[in-house]
Amino acid sequence: MSTIAFIGLGIMGSPMAVHLQNAGHRVVGFNPSPDKTAPLVQAGGSAAGSVADAVRDADVVAVMVPDSPDVRDVLTGEDGVFANAKEGTLVIDFSSIRPDVTVELAKTAKAKGFRLLDAPVSGGEAGAKNAALSIMVGGEATDFEAAREVFDALGRTVVHVGGNGAGQTVKAANQLIVAANIQALAEAVVFLGAYGVDLEAALDVLGGGLAGSKVLEQKRSAMASHDFTPGFRIDLHHKDLGIVTSAAREAGVVVPVGGLLAQLMASARANGDGALDHSGLLRGVERLSGRLSD
Amino acid sequence: MSTIAFIGLGIMGSPMAVHLQNAGHRVVGFNPSPDKTAPLVQAGGSAAGSVADAVRDADVVAVMVPDSPDVRDVLTGEDGVFANAKEGTLVIDFSSIRPDVTVELAKTAKAKGFRLLDAPVSGGEAGAKNAALSIMVGGEATDFEAAREVFDALGRTVVHVGGNGAGQTVKAANQLIVAANIQALAEAVVFLGAYGVDLEAALDVLGGGLAGSKVLEQKRSAMASHDFTPGFRIDLHHKDLGIVTSAAREAGVVVPVGGLLAQLMASARANGDGALDHSGLLRGVERLSGRLSD
Amino acid sequence: MSTIAFIGLGIMGSPMAVHLQNAGHRVVGFNPSPDKTAPLVQAGGSAAGSVADAVRDADVVAVMVPDSPDVRDVLTGEDGVFANAKEGTLVIDFSSIRPDVTVELAKTAKAKGFRLLDAPVSGGEAGAKNAALSIMVGGEATDFEAAREVFDALGRTVVHVGGNGAGQTVKAANQLIVAANIQALAEAVVFLGAYGVDLEAALDVLGGGLAGSKVLEQKRSAMASHDFTPGFRIDLHHKDLGIVTSAAREAGVVVPVGGLLAQLMASARANGDGALDHSGLLRGVERLSGRLSD
Amino acid sequence: MSTIAFIGLGIMGSPMAVHLQNAGHRVVGFNPSPDKTAPLVQAGGSAAGSVADAVRDADVVAVMVPDSPDVRDVLTGEDGVFANAKEGTLVIDFSSIRPDVTVELAKTAKAKGFRLLDAPVSGGEAGAKNAALSIMVGGEATDFEAAREVFDALGRTVVHVGGNGAGQTVKAANQLIVAANIQALAEAVVFLGAYGVDLEAALDVLGGGLAGSKVLEQKRSAMASHDFTPGFRIDLHHKDLGIVTSAAREAGVVVPVGGLLAQLMASARANGDGALDHSGLLRGVERLSGRLSD
Repeated sequence: MSTIAFIGLGIMGSPMAVHLQNAGHRVVGFNPSPDKTAPLVQAGGSAAGSVADAVRDADVVAVMVPDSPDVRDVLTGEDGVFANAKEGTLVIDFSSIRPDVTVELAKTAKAKGFRLLDAPVSGGEAGAKNAALSIMVGGEATDFEAAREVFDALGRTVVHVGGNGAGQTVKAANQLIVAANIQALAEAVVFLGAYGVDLEAALDVLGGGLAGSKVLEQKRSAMASHDFTPGFRIDLHHKDLGIVTSAAREAGVVVPVGGLLAQLMASARANGDGALDHSGLLRGVERLSGRLSD
Repeated sequence: MSTIAFIGLGIMGSPMAVHLQNAGHRVVGFNPSPDKTAPLVQAGGSAAGSVADAVRDADVVAVMVPDSPDVRDVLTGEDGVFANAKEGTLVIDFSSIRPDVTVELAKTAKAKGFRLLDAPVSGGEAGAKNAALSIMVGGEATDFEAAREVFDALGRTVVHVGGNGAGQTVKAANQLIVAANIQALAEAVVFLGAYGVDLEAALDVLGGGLAGSKVLEQKRSAMASHDFTPGFRIDLHHKDLGIVTSAAREAGVVVPVGGLLAQLMASARANGDGALDHSGLLRGVERLSGRLSD
Repeated sequence: MSTIAFIGLGIMGSPMAVHLQNAGHRVVGFNPSPDKTAPLVQAGGSAAGSVADAVRDADVVAVMVPDSPDVRDVLTGEDGVFANAKEGTLVIDFSSIRPDVTVELAKTAKAKGFRLLDAPVSGGEAGAKNAALSIMVGGEATDFEAAREVFDALGRTVVHVGGNGAGQTVKAANQLIVAANIQALAEAVVFLGAYGVDLEAALDVLGGGLAGSKVLEQKRSAMASHDFTPGFRIDLHHKDLGIVTSAAREAGVVVPVGGLLAQLMASARANGDGALDHSGLLRGVERLSGRLSD
Repeated sequence: MSTIAFIGLGIMGSPMAVHLQNAGHRVVGFNPSPDKTAPLVQAGGSAAGSVADAVRDADVVAVMVPDSPDVRDVLTGEDGVFANAKEGTLVIDFSSIRPDVTVELAKTAKAKGFRLLDAPVSGGEAGAKNAALSIMVGGEATDFEAAREVFDALGRTVVHVGGNGAGQTVKAANQLIVAANIQALAEAVVFLGAYGVDLEAALDVLGGGLAGSKVLEQKRSAMASHDFTPGFRIDLHHKDLGIVTSAAREAGVVVPVGGLLAQLMASARANGDGALDHSGLLRGVERLSGRLSD
């Protein structure tokens, strides 16, 4: 069993930290707003007052924060991991950030004697709560093996997909596919509605054929009821599609649908829907079609 | 048990007719090229030399032909169903055609004393062979009930989605969602390849999360191996996206991704890939990205 | 000088008929709502009570009506040109319609002993009023020469672009380019506004460089003032982009920007902006960007 | 008359420097590859061996280099302007770079006692040679006035569009409009070709109506002849569309056509056409349509 520092106890990070504590590890959590540490403390973990305090005695540092600059701060800041953790500590970054930033941070980590894995997740709040996340891991194979017991406490599908950055690249691909699924479902739902088709019956039969998907299963009730409580916020998916399009551009890969999705996600945000679940892309199709109901 | 005329014994129609014969019905098949009748005859059914001969004594007429004009010919031609079948015959059109043509034909059918269901299917050749099709049915509820034993011999998910045309509308929505799934997966695959990520590992983890779909399950090996043996041909999906975009336009529904997919599918066809499986959209992304391998 | 029947005296047709009368021809006009004949009668022309009456003694029949079915009615209806005009009459169709319908009507015309030119125009109400239209003419060269004096009374740039249908094909291309210009200008205007740039100064300098265009010259004040009085209505441009995308599809030409423009124009219409000038596409960009001001 | 340092003597910079020398200024040029200084020296100017040497005695420093990092180097490097020029020197950056970088550099300039204008140009090589550029200027009004005699020696349409960065923002808008014009023209050209329309005749009549533009005038012969000698390279326009889409995204402005153009330009580049003139977007439409001729 390890001593694990867990940095970032938000919607995703908090249940993940609790799972690790429950799995028998000694977890020390840190969050900028300290009230978020309660569930971890109740589970028997402890709360630190700074990143530095959290990581000082850790064998493993887990990070789950919103965006590239946040990860950079946590790792390279004065109060951060590289300045305060023990040499050789294994750092697992669960955040979804730019692959190039991950690659750069992995180089810095190595130069300073740390080991870094990028390990972004898919599966949302439910996946975090049920320890059923998909985890896409980039980094050294030996580090992946060393992190096994951490991953197994959190996820159901855990795959080592390549070197540093590969986890983030796969996560970007994931977000592209998910956005396309949601948008296509949204276009279909408005189309079916315009023709007066029974939506529930239609979604039943669509789900039974080649159009079936996790998105259809998990988002159909949100679309049918127009209840877009997150779940995964449009603001974050907007960030992720920015990563997809710029990483594709960087690599000379043309993603026509990805590019259009980035515009449509930006439109949702520009219309004030950024805090909704990403199934709220339905509202964008309704807006374009003059059928926005609320 | 009924006497069933089955018009159109192609890749889909042939195994469907055989299933109906095996389920105890008396099936009389017709196909323009008569060699396609062999499997039905081997199963104990019979072959007719014309649509007129096939439908003359039928209780039920099943139709499975490529496009709107074909269905119109079969139903309204001199040699066709309306001119030669018994009044009151139940006609089940399994073809995927334009919803407005279906609605028009249903009116004609009614005026001539026939009953028409539109019942397009999803699930492909495998679904037809395994009697595991999804069937989306439009028409009168009483006709749907009357057709139950036919549907149950062919499909796994059979849903009455509304009045005449509703089946075709749902099928159009199905084809929109499927095309979006394939294109997004194709963009993801080229993206992952450009970054040197292990594709099999990546698809494993993508399939385990919110990006998981029937398309990912069924098309990943075609994409990984570049073997685009159909399956469902790009030419037919091209026809279907024409239906989607014109039906959406007719109804005032804006489908930005659907519109772009129609262009990309047309591009595949214009580049000579029309006879490939629709997973061959991968080649379009490679073409755009200067990475077409073969 | 000729006797000219002019069918369709709307915003475009009315001033065109008057120019022909003023040029010394004897013009007999017909319009479904007869009050529209007043300007022609004031100019010395006459009004007929039916298409049949208008065309009976005509050497030339000019047609300017909204859409493909209208032209078909005027030419092939019981009251129409082919049934009532003298054999050999030259028919000039100024309407913007589907190229394939033009080709079909030209064949019918020829079979019945008539000569047909497709001669759609660009330049809008102002062009019609000032006899400054661009006219793109498809048909036989001898018929084009025979129609010269008619064209010269109406247009400034008159070009014979090919056989029957070629005029409509060029008009479709025209509408594609114009829509792209308007949409790009609209995106630029909202972009500049978001950054607080002085719009008038920016449009001055944009107009002076490679971004300069007739659209920028003629539509900038509508965009700056949000006054979208037509001009050329979105409803008609929507019809035209339907022609563009289906004709491109028919020919196996991929028009990614054309396809997207068709969706955006449909969105304008679905949001109730169909009766606005096509420069009202600006409102669509504002709508997508959460900046719709009114 | 002023002493002007001119940094960057490429296709654009070289004739601009010569014009300034010919207008009576004392121009000292610098270029990384020194052979490019010949035209300036022939015109009576002089060549410096470093940026530092060029700017030391200058009243005005003009910069014309490819991209944001190049401008940053020239201004803030050890050998650069801020470290070596006299305090108060007026710096005019003619390069097309990211507006946010311009804003940041303007702040640095001010803090160090320099005055900076962003003054990107439109009009291409021909505009540079003929002193007929459009110049879009951002910065302080007093600095704009001070730069007047420089601008007047180079451009025909010179407009002060706002504060620092506004010039770059307008240039981004310019590049969006130009790309849309070229792409729409390219789609039209392939469309017309597929229908066998006489291209020259069609472009004549298109140019006479609302589809008329500078792009049509200047790029039609390149498209007709498939001679894509630059002119303005696709690689540079690709860079510029990256600026457009990221600046629009930053501001919450949705640019659906801009986003698609960025993908299409990236595709041209990915297919090895980056060094062609941007009218080479025609090849992309041909590629999508299976009609690439060479």
